[in-house]
Amino acid sequence: MSSTWVPDVSPETPFSLANIPFGIISTPSDPAPHAAVAIGPHVLDLKVLATHGKFAELFPSLKGKDNVLSESSLNSFAALGREVHRDVRRTIQELLSTETGYPEVLRDNDELRQKALLPQRSVKMHLPVSIGDYTDFYAGYHHAYAVGAMFRGPQHALQPNYTHLPVGYHGRASTIVVSGTSIRRPNGQILLDPTAELKQPITGPSRRVDIELELGCIIAKPNQMGTPIKVTQAEDHIFGYVLLNDWSARDIQTWEYIPLGPFNSKNFASTISPWVVLADALEPFRTKAIENKTVLQDYLKEGREDTVFDIELEVDIQTPERDTTTISRTSSKNLMWSFPQMIAHHSLGGCRMNTGDLLGSGTISGPDPKESGSLLELSKGGKEDIMLYGMDVRRFLKDGDIITIRGTCGEPGQRIGFGECVGRIETALPL
Amino acid sequence: MSSTWVPDVSPETPFSLANIPFGIISTPSDPAPHAAVAIGPHVLDLKVLATHGKFAELFPSLKGKDNVLSESSLNSFAALGREVHRDVRRTIQELLSTETGYPEVLRDNDELRQKALLPQRSVKMHLPVSIGDYTDFYAGYHHAYAVGAMFRGPQHALQPNYTHLPVGYHGRASTIVVSGTSIRRPNGQILLDPTAELKQPITGPSRRVDIELELGCIIAKPNQMGTPIKVTQAEDHIFGYVLLNDWSARDIQTWEYIPLGPFNSKNFASTISPWVVLADALEPFRTKAIENKTVLQDYLKEGREDTVFDIELEVDIQTPERDTTTISRTSSKNLMWSFPQMIAHHSLGGCRMNTGDLLGSGTISGPDPKESGSLLELSKGGKEDIMLYGMDVRRFLKDGDIITIRGTCGEPGQRIGFGECVGRIETALPL
Repeated sequence: MSSTWVPDVSPETPFSLANIPFGIISTPSDPAPHAAVAIGPHVLDLKVLATHGKFAELFPSLKGKDNVLSESSLNSFAALGREVHRDVRRTIQELLSTETGYPEVLRDNDELRQKALLPQRSVKMHLPVSIGDYTDFYAGYHHAYAVGAMFRGPQHALQPNYTHLPVGYHGRASTIVVSGTSIRRPNGQILLDPTAELKQPITGPSRRVDIELELGCIIAKPNQMGTPIKVTQAEDHIFGYVLLNDWSARDIQTWEYIPLGPFNSKNFASTISPWVVLADALEPFRTKAIENKTVLQDYLKEGREDTVFDIELEVDIQTPERDTTTISRTSSKNLMWSFPQMIAHHSLGGCRMNTGDLLGSGTISGPDPKESGSLLELSKGGKEDIMLYGMDVRRFLKDGDIITIRGTCGEPGQRIGFGECVGRIETALPL
Repeated sequence: MSSTWVPDVSPETPFSLANIPFGIISTPSDPAPHAAVAIGPHVLDLKVLATHGKFAELFPSLKGKDNVLSESSLNSFAALGREVHRDVRRTIQELLSTETGYPEVLRDNDELRQKALLPQRSVKMHLPVSIGDYTDFYAGYHHAYAVGAMFRGPQHALQPNYTHLPVGYHGRASTIVVSGTSIRRPNGQILLDPTAELKQPITGPSRRVDIELELGCIIAKPNQMGTPIKVTQAEDHIFGYVLLNDWSARDIQTWEYIPLGPFNSKNFASTISPWVVLADALEPFRTKAIENKTVLQDYLKEGREDTVFDIELEVDIQTPERDTTTISRTSSKNLMWSFPQMIAHHSLGGCRMNTGDLLGSGTISGPDPKESGSLLELSKGGKEDIMLYGMDVRRFLKDGDIITIRGTCGEPGQRIGFGECVGRIETALPL
């Protein structure tokens, strides 16, 4: 991979030339949200780039469609399909490369470069896609096992269906927010003593606000309603990936979730990273999923083993006293089901997957307890303190805590990452 | 209520002058979907009506906003709020009334009337709203009890949370279709013998495709994320109501739903009526909900008893041999939770309710087994035949069966209804 002429691109940046993730920005000179890519500490404003006279020639796959870069979400671009994403990403890499064949377009074009190449800190990031439906899966085997064992004992940790199908449920799309959005602690119905004979809930702020460390997958081309997506063709329907923090209120969850699943415990907020890493960028980081000894149904057989990605994931907590502790480090490879399998299963009965739809992996935890993707696991069900810098402790989140998720892969100089996925817990509204 | 000058409006029509439901049509002369209301066997094309010179004067609350009637969904109109809906409906009633004060606008205006007043059979109905999120509740007490008793016995029919909060779960918005759309039988994972020690599912067409008779509620004005909607203010957030058939595949459901709730068993399709009956039109049909002896949390206290509507609901099945049987008759009053309570609960933790979002009541069954809103109940869990005309029987749906739901209330000449909510089961795709 060649290097870039863009200044200040450190070898440690997750936004190397090998990445070129897409996002939606607004800028001081153009407050209407529109498309950009990240490169080092900068963004390349694609709406501005599209004004160049040679744009149509450089990006033939966007011929007559370059307005997709001026829209307020990446949906229209995502809908163009994987080959177009590949072409556009490659051409942007070419333009930003030190040995670019088109130095006159951007590298040596002072006027356009100054308009199009902006410091990331000068732009505002928006939700990258308009999300019609959000589905959260439960493919993180170690998380599913640990939480199941906590509630039902190790013998019955996993339900009988777990190894036969990627368990998932419909989430709430209306409260998915971009990184940096504050998260208000939810009020909800809580059963303070679940063991009491008389079940008498109270209403108040959740005392067990938690995180869920997840990878999110964004749909590119839709299928027709009634027509499933084959597992071997699912890659064509994937636009890219985001980091996802699926905030959860465990006390609300315990009381509400039987028999129809989590509801208010989840629908108050989910945070995604501002940058969508395109599917192609992650190809070099494929690895084996967690082994599943169950004989799979045909529609879930992929015919390959390297079906998940090895992305290093980290979770930081910063307390109101500004002490920061990395409370978890794991890898996104800790999944028993791949996104193509999730897509094939989701659409098996004909469910339509629309462009921009978000699929969450489910909480990702590694086999070691230190690799847990939730405080529920790190605190052993809320029973043990998690030690933080500054001699502070947590079992669940306090008001003012800031959670930051990062995900990166690749060598220095060629790193690929999502940027941060950050949220701060605000005090609950008075009832 | 006065009568209408519109011809052929039978006393039995659900589209009396007292109703004026809103929908989205396309017409032979204007294929772009746009707004209309129903009156008897006709529709009044509101996009055409808006071209009248006096429109702005007659509809002052739509001043500068009459383009909402030309849009392909009712969302922008719904977002204007309940007072605007009330004004617009009243003025349309005035224009269509025999004693209209503005006979020159429509009644005596041959040219406009011929363009704007069209036979329903000449227009195509579309999905009335663009639905961002769909939530299905479980407020039909008799259904919840009957199904619970079937699986867990009468002692444990209802979960302890049932009388404390309106149980609900997130559904799938992408597969909600308008009445008349064919429904393909879903393939799915099925455990043929759930009692066997070794759980070995197969993949194939669902053998237990069922209906769920529901009332749907459509959101008007949104709340801000993080700010709940008070139960006493929830009416201001309701645009209107539709009939809803939440098709269900019971065998897929049994295998998949523990622990995170129904998924592929529900997300293949849900059908809604083409006409949205505005909240105001149903006001005269308020009645008491099913008594709940549990002391409610404050945020669920409405301070009134007439919180649900008494709408007569009917379910017809037509076999491929064209024999039609009404298999269920009940009332929408058979709910333990009202829509304002569902909205207050849904938003308690700050969940944003967007304009056009759909809330389903959950299956509505009456206390008598003949009043069941699902085949699961009518066939006692698939164990008994439901007798049909033509000496045919069903436990669940066969390919080619057509299900029609109707809902009406009010006296002849002032009837209010939704039109039909129809769907035909098509053969599953080969795997």
